[in-house]
Amino acid sequence: STGGKSSIQDRVFAPYSVFKGKAALSVEPVLPTFSKFGSGNLRVDRRGSMMLTFLPAIGERKYDYEKRQKFALSATEVGSLISTGPKDSCEFFHDPSMLSSNAGQVRKNLSIKPHADGSGYFVSLRRNGGQCRIDKIAELQRKVELLSRAYTMNGVVNNILKTTERFTVPVTTAEFTVLKTACSFALPHIMGWDRLTTPLPGTLAS
Amino acid sequence: STGGKSSIQDRVFAPYSVFKGKAALSVEPVLPTFSKFGSGNLRVDRRGSMMLTFLPAIGERKYDYEKRQKFALSATEVGSLISTGPKDSCEFFHDPSMLSSNAGQVRKNLSIKPHADGSGYFVSLRRNGGQCRIDKIAELQRKVELLSRAYTMNGVVNNILKTTERFTVPVTTAEFTVLKTACSFALPHIMGWDRLTTPLPGTLAS
Amino acid sequence: STGGKSSIQDRVFAPYSVFKGKAALSVEPVLPTFSKFGSGNLRVDRRGSMMLTFLPAIGERKYDYEKRQKFALSATEVGSLISTGPKDSCEFFHDPSMLSSNAGQVRKNLSIKPHADGSGYFVSLRRNGGQCRIDKIAELQRKVELLSRAYTMNGVVNNILKTTERFTVPVTTAEFTVLKTACSFALPHIMGWDRLTTPLPGTLAS
Amino acid sequence: STGGKSSIQDRVFAPYSVFKGKAALSVEPVLPTFSKFGSGNLRVDRRGSMMLTFLPAIGERKYDYEKRQKFALSATEVGSLISTGPKDSCEFFHDPSMLSSNAGQVRKNLSIKPHADGSGYFVSLRRNGGQCRIDKIAELQRKVELLSRAYTMNGVVNNILKTTERFTVPVTTAEFTVLKTACSFALPHIMGWDRLTTPLPGTLAS
Repeated sequence: STGGKSSIQDRVFAPYSVFKGKAALSVEPVLPTFSKFGSGNLRVDRRGSMMLTFLPAIGERKYDYEKRQKFALSATEVGSLISTGPKDSCEFFHDPSMLSSNAGQVRKNLSIKPHADGSGYFVSLRRNGGQCRIDKIAELQRKVELLSRAYTMNGVVNNILKTTERFTVPVTTAEFTVLKTACSFALPHIMGWDRLTTPLPGTLAS
Repeated sequence: STGGKSSIQDRVFAPYSVFKGKAALSVEPVLPTFSKFGSGNLRVDRRGSMMLTFLPAIGERKYDYEKRQKFALSATEVGSLISTGPKDSCEFFHDPSMLSSNAGQVRKNLSIKPHADGSGYFVSLRRNGGQCRIDKIAELQRKVELLSRAYTMNGVVNNILKTTERFTVPVTTAEFTVLKTACSFALPHIMGWDRLTTPLPGTLAS
Repeated sequence: STGGKSSIQDRVFAPYSVFKGKAALSVEPVLPTFSKFGSGNLRVDRRGSMMLTFLPAIGERKYDYEKRQKFALSATEVGSLISTGPKDSCEFFHDPSMLSSNAGQVRKNLSIKPHADGSGYFVSLRRNGGQCRIDKIAELQRKVELLSRAYTMNGVVNNILKTTERFTVPVTTAEFTVLKTACSFALPHIMGWDRLTTPLPGTLAS
Repeated sequence: STGGKSSIQDRVFAPYSVFKGKAALSVEPVLPTFSKFGSGNLRVDRRGSMMLTFLPAIGERKYDYEKRQKFALSATEVGSLISTGPKDSCEFFHDPSMLSSNAGQVRKNLSIKPHADGSGYFVSLRRNGGQCRIDKIAELQRKVELLSRAYTMNGVVNNILKTTERFTVPVTTAEFTVLKTACSFALPHIMGWDRLTTPLPGTLAS
């Protein structure tokens, strides 16, 4: 997939975004990639997903893109979201470093919980522990210094780098219907099923 | 987007219309526009919508296109329409001049209310106040003259240019099902999600 | 629509057919046609429909294509079919000569009625009166001769050419689900909404 | 359909797979093929289907592709699967040699049964009797020898080549929603309805 000049290469950005008081939620499908095998056969290389991006609010209608957190829903997790009824909740757990040497260090948790009055849902992302972003290191080093003084008194030095981040975005029934309808549309695309086509006899002639 | 001769430029008009005794309702998606950024990236420039057009009846099976009123539903409002159950109602408020110096002068209100017997819905557009169309000025000036004589007696001269227009179209369950099905189909398109495609390796060559 | 050699011209036949003891039902979308107006604008010329074709059985797994009867569902009638619940019925009346001088001579009636046990539906077409097909004239002339002898005794000579044809096809829940799903898919296509596309900037060049 | 170099020829593999303890289930649409008739007309030649492939587990996260069993759902059977509610079950019977001289020798049975607690379904394939695969003959000949000694005592020599294979895959509600959504998407494609298009006037000019 190195390129060419074809306009088919253009990547299109069209997230569906919900901007609320404390955070924004932006949703966008990530399509699968394909690789060739045999002669003229393609198979899914990297699976597609539905990418949820949370941004914290830093003022009225202003959100901090640098502090975004992402959560990628698999096809089956999208199935779970689509089948969530007005009083149902669902929850997913991800380890971004699963199967690597860092497994277990970071834990991400996405939960969808209905409002008590049935008027929508709370969509929350919680991120426990994990490596800090480079742009946070200076800030944290300062905190470490301050805290280490306090903690040495109590003998507690564990976990001081473990941060918990949490974003909660209230989503109305109408917005959730958009998410469900758009995710139902996108599901076959992230599965790669939109690419399953038989050529018509009429289209072969060179 | 200045052109070329490609047939891909053709704009297609295919509204779904419901013609009733006092007014007609015509519905059609308006697709988003895209702009380029970076190298080979596109992003949504102007968001798409579902355009509702109301036309008053001026005789049997005749409707006045000049007196049409439009109401553009956003993706989230389409989500609200799609999730409207047989006994639910929904309502949207728009200010066509929002964020401009004329904000607040005109108020448009679209409401969808179920028939008491569950056989369909009333879809109504109400437009309060606002600038008059050029072709209405002569007519209104005449009214003003007549009314000013009457009103000066009562001392009431306020608001005489503020008009209220109202269109109500009864929509059967079958027609509403067409709207819901067609809007569900159109929703990913007005969001621009139909453009999210990964090139297949096989399509890149030369 | 004068042509060219493009394979895009190929018409594809892919009906969904249900073969039962007394009759078969075959369903297929008929897409709209478009005409040009202005420069580079297209509008729906002839609306699309969902065509239902009934064929009487003339032996085991044999159906008489010559005696077929057709019934074209409009977009709104498709909406009615799609919203038919497990215990609902729906019915449509068509006059194939509506707005012509033959109006009222033929009456077609399609009804969809649920089985008492909820295991599916009866889909029936009834056709009253109307002009005979050329290939039936010989057969009918013979009947007329025979009947005219009988009728002259009673003085009843009215209506002897008015035939009633009736086809009933039992459709299972699974088959009806296929019809509903496929009709939901086809609805935007028969409305012409699949043609509503905005060109991407990247697709314009040269 | 012999070829050409067009990338449109590429066959894409993108199964949706559910890997469980004792077996895996993989689902993928098989599209119809078309043949030409008349001038520029195409009709469905071989109908499409939804192909279910079961693989037995032979270790942790390892499945034996050689021992796979397939079951192809027709459009109507897909309709049945799509309309399966949370407490419904459905069952299909296939004879892979139907209409041939081997009819009745093999019987395949696919059943979908809900979990008692509503948390999903058991999807099972049972295959009774039938010709053995070539790679099983050696194994079976050994069994025959051993068994024939035992059986000659009882005089039972019938059916010793008749094997029963059974695969059961538990499928969660989320996974079943993916199947239903993806099958709803694929249904018009396996019916060939995605190929029903009218050319736009603008696309004809050579």
